[in-house]
Amino acid sequence: MFNHIVCRYNEIATKSGNRSVFERRLIDNMRMLCLRAGIRLKFARMRGRILIYREENSEFTEEEREKITSCLKKCFGLDSFSFCLEGTPDMKSVMEMVEKTVPAAFAPLLEKKDTVEFRTRARRSDKSFPLTSREIEIEAATKIEELIGAGHVKVNLTNPDITLGLEVREKNSILFYDSVKSAGGLPVGSNAPVLALLSGGIDSPVACHMIMGRGCHVNFLTFHSYPYTPTETVGKVRRIATLLNRWQAPGTLYACNISEVQKLIRDHCDPRYRTVLYRRMMMRIASMVCREKKLHAVVTGESVGQVASQTVENLSVIEKASDYPILRPLCGLDKNETIRRAVELETFPVSIEPMPDSCTVFAPPSPVLHAKLHTVEFEESKIPDMNSALEKAFQSIESFSDI
Amino acid sequence: MFNHIVCRYNEIATKSGNRSVFERRLIDNMRMLCLRAGIRLKFARMRGRILIYREENSEFTEEEREKITSCLKKCFGLDSFSFCLEGTPDMKSVMEMVEKTVPAAFAPLLEKKDTVEFRTRARRSDKSFPLTSREIEIEAATKIEELIGAGHVKVNLTNPDITLGLEVREKNSILFYDSVKSAGGLPVGSNAPVLALLSGGIDSPVACHMIMGRGCHVNFLTFHSYPYTPTETVGKVRRIATLLNRWQAPGTLYACNISEVQKLIRDHCDPRYRTVLYRRMMMRIASMVCREKKLHAVVTGESVGQVASQTVENLSVIEKASDYPILRPLCGLDKNETIRRAVELETFPVSIEPMPDSCTVFAPPSPVLHAKLHTVEFEESKIPDMNSALEKAFQSIESFSDI
Repeated sequence: MFNHIVCRYNEIATKSGNRSVFERRLIDNMRMLCLRAGIRLKFARMRGRILIYREENSEFTEEEREKITSCLKKCFGLDSFSFCLEGTPDMKSVMEMVEKTVPAAFAPLLEKKDTVEFRTRARRSDKSFPLTSREIEIEAATKIEELIGAGHVKVNLTNPDITLGLEVREKNSILFYDSVKSAGGLPVGSNAPVLALLSGGIDSPVACHMIMGRGCHVNFLTFHSYPYTPTETVGKVRRIATLLNRWQAPGTLYACNISEVQKLIRDHCDPRYRTVLYRRMMMRIASMVCREKKLHAVVTGESVGQVASQTVENLSVIEKASDYPILRPLCGLDKNETIRRAVELETFPVSIEPMPDSCTVFAPPSPVLHAKLHTVEFEESKIPDMNSALEKAFQSIESFSDI
Repeated sequence: MFNHIVCRYNEIATKSGNRSVFERRLIDNMRMLCLRAGIRLKFARMRGRILIYREENSEFTEEEREKITSCLKKCFGLDSFSFCLEGTPDMKSVMEMVEKTVPAAFAPLLEKKDTVEFRTRARRSDKSFPLTSREIEIEAATKIEELIGAGHVKVNLTNPDITLGLEVREKNSILFYDSVKSAGGLPVGSNAPVLALLSGGIDSPVACHMIMGRGCHVNFLTFHSYPYTPTETVGKVRRIATLLNRWQAPGTLYACNISEVQKLIRDHCDPRYRTVLYRRMMMRIASMVCREKKLHAVVTGESVGQVASQTVENLSVIEKASDYPILRPLCGLDKNETIRRAVELETFPVSIEPMPDSCTVFAPPSPVLHAKLHTVEFEESKIPDMNSALEKAFQSIESFSDI
């Protein structure tokens, strides 16, 4: 029935200065996500909206609608969208679209109910249009009563079974029924690219997703401790990264073997400091990757106070080892809220698969809760040739960009 | 009808090592919040629960219940609570409590409906109790049918009008009906104290509240530019801090006049860098306050990419001026989500009152979007005697601890 999609955005509309940059970015992202699902589309910008066309002017099949819906729901920057019809900006065209779509749109509801409750919602961005929004709504409602029969439809403005939407603009008019909620936020790529520390846990994938929604393209860095952790440790993280890449142009996964560095820490430092020292080494390697790949910040799944490595004091000591700012989207969230988001993101079932990870290799029974910087620096000073061990770990990084 | 309150916690229960520290902190906080409302209570810890008693063993009045409910809902670390009755751990006592409370609990529902749908829910932590949970539930349900009359009640396990809760423990048994959702998270004070940059805007109060929920006691630092901003600027922030203090033992508000520093920046630096330079000066003063007051991190309401001062590059350059880690609970949140939280927190109506703030004093028409550290440092090098201006601003800080 429909051969167009009308796309609405919210937050980016407020950026009057850079609006067109944002719109272009959003269009590029929608095009890329749909192309990846094998669907080629055309895009047109119109004031405050983006209209999607098919290459051929034919209607979308049910299968195409499902695929496109799944892609566009994952497009950050997009607030909502509706499959629609496009006409010319006059009441004749509007009424033709109403006539063409109402019987099919109301039919499934009429099978379930004797009297379908509906409303019409009109907007006109062309204020010189001869009818007001209210008048357009009344004309469309009258036409619906005519088409279905007054006994079988009834206006309900607050909680209708179906809403008919109309927009009359300078150059066209559009008609739609449902509106699908999309990801919101800012289009990926409208802010600087970043590097996320991705583990096999529940938290870090959620942090990645939240920061994507602020316009940052996310690349991933994971640590393993082969042969102390199995090769599947990286495989699991790779599956999580693949799930996350559904929301952006694929980010690269970097996998770093940190076992030699961990052995040095095990052999030379106070065991209670291992967790903090590991994290500081990870931050140093992350800074090396950021420098080489021109990424601007490190994203972590750290919260505050949830585990021993996440007291404010320990976060502070760990942060000091990073040359780049650390973004912690989960730092103020409750664990329940993080889990809710992980379930929605579909990473949760993968995250809870049991798998040894590098953080727990040689993990001490009672890690320090309130590390002091000078003590930690003293512990590090006991490690012989720490920098060349870090450099070696950095050089051994494997990249996966085909995920 | 009730003379006790049973309190449930969630996340902190998982910290087996420090559980009793957390419980004591939670009790201290509940006691303090209720005392502030003029209500003195007694507390007892029992496995996985906290029981609140009245000093005199009398029932709570309706007014007391409302006051206590309002206080306990703002107690971080507490998951939910129920006003309840306490009995001995035997079925005779349980059935007496059922008999005593059911008629009054069901009466208001029976006024509205002919048949009230109910369920009973029992737990027993004492596994040597002669009845299973299921058997306790059936006995209680049978008693309810007897008391109300079988025709007027009906069991509904999935969506009842009322639920009767019972817990049988080693040393007592409790009975309750409603369960009130509380703030969740971790008890304030279970993590290190922090300093939040609080403006009159929508975002920073939400950031403060989220970080309190991670166990950090929050003190507040606000900047004004008197005489370029009116004295009411601080008054507005003070009202917001007072609202936030309802969730914790009062944090102190520090108000710093930054106008002299801003004048130096205006007179000596490239106008496009003003916003970034102001923020760096604020970070330096925040570090001075942290050092003096022994606070461990700086909390800001910064998101990523929402306004010019919040591109990843600018956040990075601003952060370099801070000696303390910066926690940005909103960095991955959508503006809509932040607004939703501000409304719930009741700070939103105050935040949207129009008021000049120090960030917009001498604000440039087109601030730099992607500042580079070396350029910013060059701009700062043009300021004569920056450190003594900062020291002067720091010395002039006014403290408000009576809020």
